[in-house]
Amino acid sequence: MTRFKSIVEYKGTDFVGWQRQDNGLSIQELIEGAIQKMAQETVVVHAAGRTDAGVHAMGQVISFDLNKNLSPLQITDAINFYLRPHPIAILSTEKADDDFHARFSAKSRIYIYQIINRRSHLTLDQDLAWFISKPLVLEPMQHAANMLCGKHDFTSFRSSQCQAASPLKTLTSIHINQDQDKISVQVEAPSFLHHQVRNIVGTLKLIGLGYWPPEKMLAILNAKDRAAAGPTAPPIGLYFYKVLY
Amino acid sequence: MTRFKSIVEYKGTDFVGWQRQDNGLSIQELIEGAIQKMAQETVVVHAAGRTDAGVHAMGQVISFDLNKNLSPLQITDAINFYLRPHPIAILSTEKADDDFHARFSAKSRIYIYQIINRRSHLTLDQDLAWFISKPLVLEPMQHAANMLCGKHDFTSFRSSQCQAASPLKTLTSIHINQDQDKISVQVEAPSFLHHQVRNIVGTLKLIGLGYWPPEKMLAILNAKDRAAAGPTAPPIGLYFYKVLY
Repeated sequence: MTRFKSIVEYKGTDFVGWQRQDNGLSIQELIEGAIQKMAQETVVVHAAGRTDAGVHAMGQVISFDLNKNLSPLQITDAINFYLRPHPIAILSTEKADDDFHARFSAKSRIYIYQIINRRSHLTLDQDLAWFISKPLVLEPMQHAANMLCGKHDFTSFRSSQCQAASPLKTLTSIHINQDQDKISVQVEAPSFLHHQVRNIVGTLKLIGLGYWPPEKMLAILNAKDRAAAGPTAPPIGLYFYKVLY
Repeated sequence: MTRFKSIVEYKGTDFVGWQRQDNGLSIQELIEGAIQKMAQETVVVHAAGRTDAGVHAMGQVISFDLNKNLSPLQITDAINFYLRPHPIAILSTEKADDDFHARFSAKSRIYIYQIINRRSHLTLDQDLAWFISKPLVLEPMQHAANMLCGKHDFTSFRSSQCQAASPLKTLTSIHINQDQDKISVQVEAPSFLHHQVRNIVGTLKLIGLGYWPPEKMLAILNAKDRAAAGPTAPPIGLYFYKVLY
């Protein structure tokens, strides 16, 4: 038996999310099914992050065990053969240590939230970014974002369905960048609460629009109350970008 | 009566192309229809380039006349109101001189052809780039591309349906760039023959794969025979990027 680690890219639009669910197609189900067809073995695939419905991935990481003796390249190609034409692809595979676990071995996770900020509706980026028509000002957004870095009780940014034992999380960094009408919010942390990135981005939006002053971010954090923060940003703009081990 | 100039962005996937046709929805038809609904006037819209089915635009330019007295911003918003939810959007509008014509006033046109070169099928970029799974080498592609710059008889790269009076065209530049697995071919010329960019890219692909040496490009050009060049690259990767006046 060999343990493998693969990098996975997907467009989340038409899926119920990473995790198997009764109400639609999940990414987990399709990948496990493809591995099963390829290797004739029943496998359980672990993912670094259980992305929600509509959320995309550029660098999701999975781990799984196989008895069948195949090279990493053969595995990549064979899984992709069965995944097509779904918008899910294995980008690469490598052999991993026996104790490697895509979720529990992860040291850090990076998400990118993509916004398109312009007056006209989206065409080429439909389903791939959050469209915000009113002008955002970046400086107060970055100023407010900096207040979230470090170890805090993130109850104000935590979904009511979050299953984490504690609301204490350490945010490593938030970088906000602009390239013409594209604004990206890159967030890194060892791990996240459910909806944490989307709730942060939804709050940063209100600050960027000038509805809230950037200083309010500290009061929101200290309130430890989900109702104090802004609404959850839609899944459409969220990308699971990279996992560090 | 005032003449207007607008910049238009669209995702060409589900359209028969710019020009009105009997067999499906065209971009021209939808934009003319939107202007008509907005202004209650019948207008003819001229475009800088008549893009084919499946071809996208980031900076198509159109010109049209209106009797109704509206500001450029009102025109942009009102056309977009009727264009939604189609993936076609007016990015901006300005008043133009009475003799301005989107097609005939154009001094130069820039197309970008987007390739994704990797082993795994596309997910996030489905419909937005040409997927080439075998590795392309850029240097011979750029070397061959340089041979096409200047004024030449481009018969070898001309569609049999091309309606241009002459196969003589002047290619200003071709720049090929790579960013990880994304390769872009940017081509500029005062004007193009039908399928010229796609036929050039289809030929560059065979050179990038090593099937043909870069020096062959000169023989292909001199052959003045469409059969001498490579196959037409698919519309999926082509973007009408910018028009200079």
